[in-house]
Amino acid sequence: MEYLTSTSKEVSELFTCYYGDQKTELSKASYYLLEAEGKRLRPAMFKLAAESVTPGSSNQIMSGALAVEVTHTFTLVHDDIMDDDSLRRGRPTVHVVWNEPTAILAGDVLFARAFVLLADANADPSRKVEAVRILGKASEDICEGQQSDMAFEARDDVSADEYLEMVRKKTGVLYGTAGALGALLAGASPEVVSAFMTFGEHLGIAFQIQDDIIDLTRETAVSGKDQASDIREGKQTLIAIRAREKGIDLTPYQRNLSSDEIQEIITLLTEAGIIADITAEAQAYIDSGVACLSILPDSQEKELLLDVAQFFIQRAY
Amino acid sequence: MEYLTSTSKEVSELFTCYYGDQKTELSKASYYLLEAEGKRLRPAMFKLAAESVTPGSSNQIMSGALAVEVTHTFTLVHDDIMDDDSLRRGRPTVHVVWNEPTAILAGDVLFARAFVLLADANADPSRKVEAVRILGKASEDICEGQQSDMAFEARDDVSADEYLEMVRKKTGVLYGTAGALGALLAGASPEVVSAFMTFGEHLGIAFQIQDDIIDLTRETAVSGKDQASDIREGKQTLIAIRAREKGIDLTPYQRNLSSDEIQEIITLLTEAGIIADITAEAQAYIDSGVACLSILPDSQEKELLLDVAQFFIQRAY
Repeated sequence: MEYLTSTSKEVSELFTCYYGDQKTELSKASYYLLEAEGKRLRPAMFKLAAESVTPGSSNQIMSGALAVEVTHTFTLVHDDIMDDDSLRRGRPTVHVVWNEPTAILAGDVLFARAFVLLADANADPSRKVEAVRILGKASEDICEGQQSDMAFEARDDVSADEYLEMVRKKTGVLYGTAGALGALLAGASPEVVSAFMTFGEHLGIAFQIQDDIIDLTRETAVSGKDQASDIREGKQTLIAIRAREKGIDLTPYQRNLSSDEIQEIITLLTEAGIIADITAEAQAYIDSGVACLSILPDSQEKELLLDVAQFFIQRAY
Repeated sequence: MEYLTSTSKEVSELFTCYYGDQKTELSKASYYLLEAEGKRLRPAMFKLAAESVTPGSSNQIMSGALAVEVTHTFTLVHDDIMDDDSLRRGRPTVHVVWNEPTAILAGDVLFARAFVLLADANADPSRKVEAVRILGKASEDICEGQQSDMAFEARDDVSADEYLEMVRKKTGVLYGTAGALGALLAGASPEVVSAFMTFGEHLGIAFQIQDDIIDLTRETAVSGKDQASDIREGKQTLIAIRAREKGIDLTPYQRNLSSDEIQEIITLLTEAGIIADITAEAQAYIDSGVACLSILPDSQEKELLLDVAQFFIQRAY
């Protein structure tokens, strides 16, 4: 937690240096969500990957860490338009504060800046070109993941494989890219770059499964999110899919639910072994992700990466 | 024209190779406007710039020409959402055929691919990194240009300088980038790269001024566009701005106009010398753009570039 907090502070300060003095309305809209501090998990992964490969390297290539966070922010701005979400990180969303055209352009500006930030890293040019390729392909995957997520809303027969592939693209790939780019720009071999990609992808999948569990089991007061909203909306989460596979029909619960009814669903799914199965699935993704890092020599950064991996599923919200 | 036609064919064939076999709905939506053949003026500028710098170089770096065209197409897909335009290149727009979320994502996918295409060019890695930086910064300018264009719709006091800066960003910068990237990836000096940037920017500004003249003076049957629509909509074109500067009030014409009334406006503006002034302004941008190319040795490609420059303002539609 200490490491994450200090990285988050560093990233915010760098963003202020890069973009703090915005003149136009569009550049203000682009900066608005960047300055609202998130957990900055992706820059932390980037930095730890770089330091685990070459100690002391990360200062030279921190613009690459910013590139990943800027890409993440671009996807949030556009996703909020598509999902018509009005709140993000506790603030009204960009298309609510400005308007939809400005939000589309603000996302585009952020995406453009991500590639300029990669070009700005103080690293070998061939590695920067490869980084551009990886970030470009990752971004296409993220868009495909968001498209699938929206398409799944109209379906009630999504398979576990389809769900896991959607989540890998929508969430996993950018965590993978964060570690892969940090390692790549710090001089890692292709094997190590690839290990970080898989590590991050698996962590991202576990993160999303854990999110589904939190949505169901944590009370609103703890999680800050509306409890059991996924079940109420009939969302095709891994919980819903595994329940369906075991013949448990959750469709009658697609309506307003009392606390007692939510408790009833939790008991039903717990007794069927589904909560335990899903928790084990998330843990298995963490474990297989962590196993990828055995390629690295021992270091303090490696230990921190393993801690981050556990944090992904042990967080309460 | 012959050169433009053969480049257009080559570019379309390359797009088919790269993206012809699309599996997902999103990648189909991304490909849809790419395959609708436009004039492909930007890839032609890229290729002529490369060949004028290093004969025989363009085959190695054609993916860079595609990157520019893909960037142009991405901006069209997003602009059509913002302006709610329903037709483009004679086909229904992406957000009409699919829907708005898919069109936002399709644009994002194209933008991501532009950078992957740059990375794919067979050129020196340092030059590719510089190309990424130029394309990223150009894209931010294009977004700023579109934002200004939309903001101007709510104003009736846009100055000529504001208009020209908007047009430089929205239209000029990508023509400049096309030539600059072709030259850069073919091994040009920074001075030559910069000369191509200014050449393209000035041509783009002239192109837009010429568009304003065509909108007013060409009959719908010739131009394929609704005659005098700019005047009817009260758009702040250079014609409207220069007229206002000379005390001519066009606001009474912001309504449906008969052919006779359009002729009356043309006569009014012609007698005030405004059509001649604007035509001279466009020609001056062509001339100052062309002057930048004096840095190049004589070649067939240089001659073709000068022909393209004249084409920008001599076209009838």
